[in-house]
Amino acid sequence: MEDFKQGLLEGKKRAAARLISMGENGQQEALDVIKELYHKTGNAYVIGVTGPPGAGKSTLTDKLVKVCRAAGHKVGVIAVDPTSPFTGGAILGDRIRMSDLNTDPGVFIRSMGARGNLGGISEATGVAVDVLDIYGCEYIFVETVGVGQSEVDIVKSCDTTLMVMVPGLGDDIQAIKAGVMEIGDVFVINKADRDGAEKTAREIRMMLEFNKNEWNPPVNMAIAVENQGIKELLDSIFEHREYMTGSGKGHVRRVENRKSELLTIVKERMTRKLFEKTYNGEVIDDLSQKVAKKETDPYSAAEMILEKINMN
Amino acid sequence: MEDFKQGLLEGKKRAAARLISMGENGQQEALDVIKELYHKTGNAYVIGVTGPPGAGKSTLTDKLVKVCRAAGHKVGVIAVDPTSPFTGGAILGDRIRMSDLNTDPGVFIRSMGARGNLGGISEATGVAVDVLDIYGCEYIFVETVGVGQSEVDIVKSCDTTLMVMVPGLGDDIQAIKAGVMEIGDVFVINKADRDGAEKTAREIRMMLEFNKNEWNPPVNMAIAVENQGIKELLDSIFEHREYMTGSGKGHVRRVENRKSELLTIVKERMTRKLFEKTYNGEVIDDLSQKVAKKETDPYSAAEMILEKINMN
Repeated sequence: MEDFKQGLLEGKKRAAARLISMGENGQQEALDVIKELYHKTGNAYVIGVTGPPGAGKSTLTDKLVKVCRAAGHKVGVIAVDPTSPFTGGAILGDRIRMSDLNTDPGVFIRSMGARGNLGGISEATGVAVDVLDIYGCEYIFVETVGVGQSEVDIVKSCDTTLMVMVPGLGDDIQAIKAGVMEIGDVFVINKADRDGAEKTAREIRMMLEFNKNEWNPPVNMAIAVENQGIKELLDSIFEHREYMTGSGKGHVRRVENRKSELLTIVKERMTRKLFEKTYNGEVIDDLSQKVAKKETDPYSAAEMILEKINMN
Repeated sequence: MEDFKQGLLEGKKRAAARLISMGENGQQEALDVIKELYHKTGNAYVIGVTGPPGAGKSTLTDKLVKVCRAAGHKVGVIAVDPTSPFTGGAILGDRIRMSDLNTDPGVFIRSMGARGNLGGISEATGVAVDVLDIYGCEYIFVETVGVGQSEVDIVKSCDTTLMVMVPGLGDDIQAIKAGVMEIGDVFVINKADRDGAEKTAREIRMMLEFNKNEWNPPVNMAIAVENQGIKELLDSIFEHREYMTGSGKGHVRRVENRKSELLTIVKERMTRKLFEKTYNGEVIDDLSQKVAKKETDPYSAAEMILEKINMN
């Protein structure tokens, strides 16, 4: 454990990588290292990047990272796919596009997938953010694949959330869950050379009107593949950062973020315990069969399960 | 308790209404009644109605109910709004539109809202479905307001799920979460007289192509306010029912539904316990503050909470 601690403090990539993997596998040792070094976190600025599949989040992140690198900053990228057991690595292509950053010693790239349905992805992502923060990254981009609840939970612990959209395409249905919009601090219409970009921007501005707040999220335009609008987008992100710091809202947000993070960790662990204590869900399967046969009812079955896990 | 049991078995509306309210308030007595009568469930056919806000789900449900009524069936309607603490009753208008059914003794209408963030809405909905099933409803429509995770959990316990869509409107962004599409057994484009109805139908068919299955969800057209396409839609629902029964998949689905229902109840109760055992979340608030001040770290804080609720 001392080795990892030392390695991380000295900014050794290998130590960071190993700790993140250990966190993913739920190894207590990784958590012990972070616990001891937690007071060293808080220097990284964490930017969440989310939006519907196909919006070009990876390319956009890639370009944003390059601007940060040009300014000499140490950067971390965490790409999270909570749905990976289902998509079966279909998003791997997205990751590869970032590969020319892979050889840059000032960039740490990591992708995280869900390992089954026991939860834990949010906690593992939190561990990775903390590790990269201590490791010395000044900016950490947390990119998610979709816009579901897990993604919302994940970006909820970021300092600024960037919502990436695309102009409405013929065959593409905008995959935006009502309510997800509210988590965007900064919006960008990527692929802005496509038809309908202005219309999409107008629609988003209109939706934001309903949610009026002191901070009015800017709606940027970008063409990531052509490196257009990237610096302006980063400026928007920095404006949000300044607003949050200047207004004192940054502190309030950080407390809220920590609470959301904490609740997510607790719920994930509760779900894991639920499966462990029911023989990997076997008890739940058996009881479902019994309910279906009406040998018992769902409420008695739930009580039995809760009793088994001492939550009654 | 005997009174309620008796009343429900005799098909007394008041008994059903009271039991549903008691279930909403988490009163054990309601669950005790259902437990005793659970063997009498399974006669109702449960149809989930979901889709983005503004798709006209309530009007469509209203018309479908009227067709069922014309055939002499006893019908239940449960309108669920998991987000009601936030929308503040904005959907009440939807409910009122169904009011001319309210005077029909053969229809039982009930709306359910979330009572805070402690969860429990899925369980309360399950209770309502069971009560109306025992009460003698042959068809139960479970209508949800949005298309979020809670809605998915709710319609997951239905026999047939109807997904209501609308043609793409200028200012309207289709609020469909990627992944939500899969839960639709039957699709309908409502307000089909609007521009782009055929285009929307094509888009949906294309999305369904990716998810090919033995059952190919039909995509219907309807104009609910003009009562157009309603009988055909109900026929599609019945076709799905026949397919499920004929192929034996109905049984498999029911077991899966019961499992999903059971897991949801267990998780909702775990979350409730979590809040109860942490003094309504006070412990969590305090610990979040401490983490933000770095007096502790999220992992130690999570462990403290889990220890407090005996889930460590």
